[in-house]
Amino acid sequence: MSHPLSDKLESMRHSLAHLLASAVLEMFPEAKLGIGPVIEDGFYYDFELPRTLMPEDLPLLEQKMKEIIRANVSFLREEMPAEEALKLFEKIKQPYKTELINDLQVENTKTVSLYKTGPFVDLCRGPHIQTTKEIPSDSFKLTKIAGAYWKGSEKNKMLQRVYGVAFAQKSELKEYLEKLAEAEKRDHRKLGKELDLFITSELVGAGLPLWTPKGALIRNLLDEYVWKLREACGFQKVSIPHITRKELYEKSGHWQKFSDELFKIKSREGHEFALKPMSCPHHIQIFDRKLYSFRDLPVRYCETTMVYRDEQSGELGGISRVRGMTQDDSHVFCSKDQIEKEVLMIWDIIKKFYSTFKFDLRVRLSLHDPKNFEKYLGTPEIWKTAEGSLQSIAKHRSAEFEIGIGEAALYGPKIDFIAKDSLGRDWQVATIQLDFNQPERFDLNFINQKGQKERVVMIHCAIMGSLERFISVLIEHYTGAFPVWLSPIQVAILPVTTKHNAKAKQLAKIFEQENIRVFLDDAKESVGKKIRAASFQKIPYMIVFGDKEAKSNNLFIKERGKEKVSKTTRKAFIEKIKKEIEKKK
Amino acid sequence: MSHPLSDKLESMRHSLAHLLASAVLEMFPEAKLGIGPVIEDGFYYDFELPRTLMPEDLPLLEQKMKEIIRANVSFLREEMPAEEALKLFEKIKQPYKTELINDLQVENTKTVSLYKTGPFVDLCRGPHIQTTKEIPSDSFKLTKIAGAYWKGSEKNKMLQRVYGVAFAQKSELKEYLEKLAEAEKRDHRKLGKELDLFITSELVGAGLPLWTPKGALIRNLLDEYVWKLREACGFQKVSIPHITRKELYEKSGHWQKFSDELFKIKSREGHEFALKPMSCPHHIQIFDRKLYSFRDLPVRYCETTMVYRDEQSGELGGISRVRGMTQDDSHVFCSKDQIEKEVLMIWDIIKKFYSTFKFDLRVRLSLHDPKNFEKYLGTPEIWKTAEGSLQSIAKHRSAEFEIGIGEAALYGPKIDFIAKDSLGRDWQVATIQLDFNQPERFDLNFINQKGQKERVVMIHCAIMGSLERFISVLIEHYTGAFPVWLSPIQVAILPVTTKHNAKAKQLAKIFEQENIRVFLDDAKESVGKKIRAASFQKIPYMIVFGDKEAKSNNLFIKERGKEKVSKTTRKAFIEKIKKEIEKKK
Repeated sequence: MSHPLSDKLESMRHSLAHLLASAVLEMFPEAKLGIGPVIEDGFYYDFELPRTLMPEDLPLLEQKMKEIIRANVSFLREEMPAEEALKLFEKIKQPYKTELINDLQVENTKTVSLYKTGPFVDLCRGPHIQTTKEIPSDSFKLTKIAGAYWKGSEKNKMLQRVYGVAFAQKSELKEYLEKLAEAEKRDHRKLGKELDLFITSELVGAGLPLWTPKGALIRNLLDEYVWKLREACGFQKVSIPHITRKELYEKSGHWQKFSDELFKIKSREGHEFALKPMSCPHHIQIFDRKLYSFRDLPVRYCETTMVYRDEQSGELGGISRVRGMTQDDSHVFCSKDQIEKEVLMIWDIIKKFYSTFKFDLRVRLSLHDPKNFEKYLGTPEIWKTAEGSLQSIAKHRSAEFEIGIGEAALYGPKIDFIAKDSLGRDWQVATIQLDFNQPERFDLNFINQKGQKERVVMIHCAIMGSLERFISVLIEHYTGAFPVWLSPIQVAILPVTTKHNAKAKQLAKIFEQENIRVFLDDAKESVGKKIRAASFQKIPYMIVFGDKEAKSNNLFIKERGKEKVSKTTRKAFIEKIKKEIEKKK
Repeated sequence: MSHPLSDKLESMRHSLAHLLASAVLEMFPEAKLGIGPVIEDGFYYDFELPRTLMPEDLPLLEQKMKEIIRANVSFLREEMPAEEALKLFEKIKQPYKTELINDLQVENTKTVSLYKTGPFVDLCRGPHIQTTKEIPSDSFKLTKIAGAYWKGSEKNKMLQRVYGVAFAQKSELKEYLEKLAEAEKRDHRKLGKELDLFITSELVGAGLPLWTPKGALIRNLLDEYVWKLREACGFQKVSIPHITRKELYEKSGHWQKFSDELFKIKSREGHEFALKPMSCPHHIQIFDRKLYSFRDLPVRYCETTMVYRDEQSGELGGISRVRGMTQDDSHVFCSKDQIEKEVLMIWDIIKKFYSTFKFDLRVRLSLHDPKNFEKYLGTPEIWKTAEGSLQSIAKHRSAEFEIGIGEAALYGPKIDFIAKDSLGRDWQVATIQLDFNQPERFDLNFINQKGQKERVVMIHCAIMGSLERFISVLIEHYTGAFPVWLSPIQVAILPVTTKHNAKAKQLAKIFEQENIRVFLDDAKESVGKKIRAASFQKIPYMIVFGDKEAKSNNLFIKERGKEKVSKTTRKAFIEKIKKEIEKKK
């Protein structure tokens, strides 16, 4: 199954997917083919095979693909009645293809298109290139093998997915592979384990990470930072449970629009509950406990709390896509004429927060898709007002912003912030969402200056988004070498021999009293081994502690990533590091 | 249905329940009777009635009961075959009684006993007093009407429950009623609402409180305090999700032993999850991520996190019994010879914490019940070791302690701490639990000094228990007048007229800069009204701000609960209050 493609490169990538399938069939004539679409930078194809593929198979398959390219085979399109195609794929024993044709027939498709390349035939909408000669055979590569459920559902069979990348030129492939190697080095799953930040457990379940002391420390430091920024702007912490009766989410609309992703619970008394996928309806309940005058607004609530979504197993990845995520969610309840000030205030928090990590931020105004209006809550009028309001604020800030049609939230338009990391990759992070709909559904009002009831407006905002995802981005952004203030261990003290342990411990105590996180490596190991271990842990500062250090107040500091050590006094070093922590360096 | 009773007073209370039912039948001949047991201080009886009872009905019913007492009616016991009793209650149209007899028959009871008092007859095991004359008619009182599900299940009909209290003497009744009035004044549900600390929402569900900014602040202050005490003892924060796969709780044993109280979830892929009722198996997963040497132990994890239990609706009450509770849970993983030191260290934390609130603590050693061994995990040998160990620690501390047979946790014995509040009521609060069983089930080891694998021991501990329950106790203990450090608002500034607002605001700013929580009441109201509002909110300090205060640095402070105001300077007052906060006064 293929998607309509726009340009030459995409056609080429798609054609390579066919060549891959053709090569696999050469190697395993009994292979059953799944789907083979184009993805960012390349393509993949899913197969059911008589044995598990090994990395060693990939060059062999590449070789076979290159042979087909050299043979200059044409891509021939053929249209035929679905019934006829069904018989063809039944005959060549491709049950996944027949399943796809059956699905198309259910959707009332009468005619389907096939593409043939030599003896290979695939069900495909195209387009493709004309002949295999158009593919530069030195600018593609098969990159990895992974498991993937048929149609993405765990209920179905697990197939083997082969990924490939392809570019117009060899130099682009080279650049891509270098970047990939760098990204792999930075992979948050790998670093998360090496730096001992979080684990996943088979018994607890996929997408439900558990945070070790070091990881929990980073979570808490980040959360505390966001809270300090918010506190200064008049936010207040509230606290809510993780489950709620169905009725709340029916009223908010989540039950209907979010249904598949809700974890549902039935109590022993037969009540239906859901694990909250969002905190807004709960905050609304708290807000709604009393009557407000214009003098009381804005009311600003926040809480960092876990929300749960029943993601499919195939969608999960490390801590960047999970089933239980910690949102640093906030909700402002205000009047219409307070929107601008509030949005800009939150915008400033976001700018300040992301500049701390030296992320470049891009802004996207995410609007609803009028063609899929049934996806959203509320009326076209309400959407028009909300979107107009947000657009004028974005213009006022004179920010460069792009427009994302169909990127709005369920209940309103939003301003999304996209951070570019140190590898130049984009990550959608913070979001400010304007909501005229939930106040309508929950009938939220205040008494305005004229003494009349007026509808409240809600502004939703998460600064980090989800802590899990944000930390996955941070780990990769820094390759695990966190700034001093975020480093679980800030200073490693490495006694040269065990006879230096006692005095080294005294130094560790001094640091601890200054609230510096210190690790004393008093094991019976060589100092070289200790240095390697501390480097592997990416600890910002190392102090090798020998006779000289025991006798004087001088320290020789080895800074992370630097070869040379620098001499300083205890006092000066403590001052320097405390300043860095304070300034979040 | 009645319980075997031990003494005269209990027989009398039980007999009064019969008189109440008899009186109700006089008033409503069509009344259907549920059950009428003895409870602490009195009795109740459940009825299905043609109309809802009103408080005005209670004196009328009391009057009728007194008439029966005066008539000196005998309680006559009669035994008969269950079949015969069934016919009798069918005849007098008491369907709940026939249901109870049917239940008894299912349990193989052949003969049942009835008690008759004049025309009134009840299914009852007795015993009762001989004649109604034995009841002093001035020492009982019907106290309230409430709804109660038949057999405590929400699936059944809601009946009307009438509560009564009864004592041997009039003076005891008087004393009880006075205490009751005091307790009602302190009722955490009432004060929680008045002080705006938490709410419950029909849409969210019973037993799932939502915390307003003021309530959340108290939660966070308490939690921060517990954390500081723990941090000083080497605890580390971890972080875990609220749901987990069935498999984890099967392995821990919770799935089997806790089953009814587990909220169960099925994912869209068909996996079974549960909301965690306890955090220990999760902490075990984190601990189990690597191999430990004796040098690494003890490992001490903590996290304040919500756990969920599917309590029946009838069991819920305010925030003292909830479905989602916040536990300040911790787990120490150590070797056998570290148990004593660790337990005593935690014991010290508990002592320090509760002395801050001036609670008297009593200690109970809670052991397993050998007669119900199937309720617990593990072998008799393991229990013997664990209980012996805890008993010797308690003796070592030379604490006076009571023994609670059958009060142990699922996985081990515990030391429970019972706090006496300012009204003299007992509350079970903190707990230290020794666990040899979970390390066995999860095969948790470390390498000891001899280089051999050795089994780890776990010590579970919650200092506050559940934050919800602890705060309910605190509210009642203080009648809502929290100490300064815990008060959501510490100082109220009350401008005499609106023309003082500006200068009063400057003073508020000064306090805020000193991290004092201040409320400026700048409404257009009389200062008298402002004082009443601030008193109602139980704010520790009030400053009436008029001309004098605007012109000088002197302040006239009205302390909570005191009539006289005291003169001081701004500086002295700020110093005083900051000291109180620091010392947790």
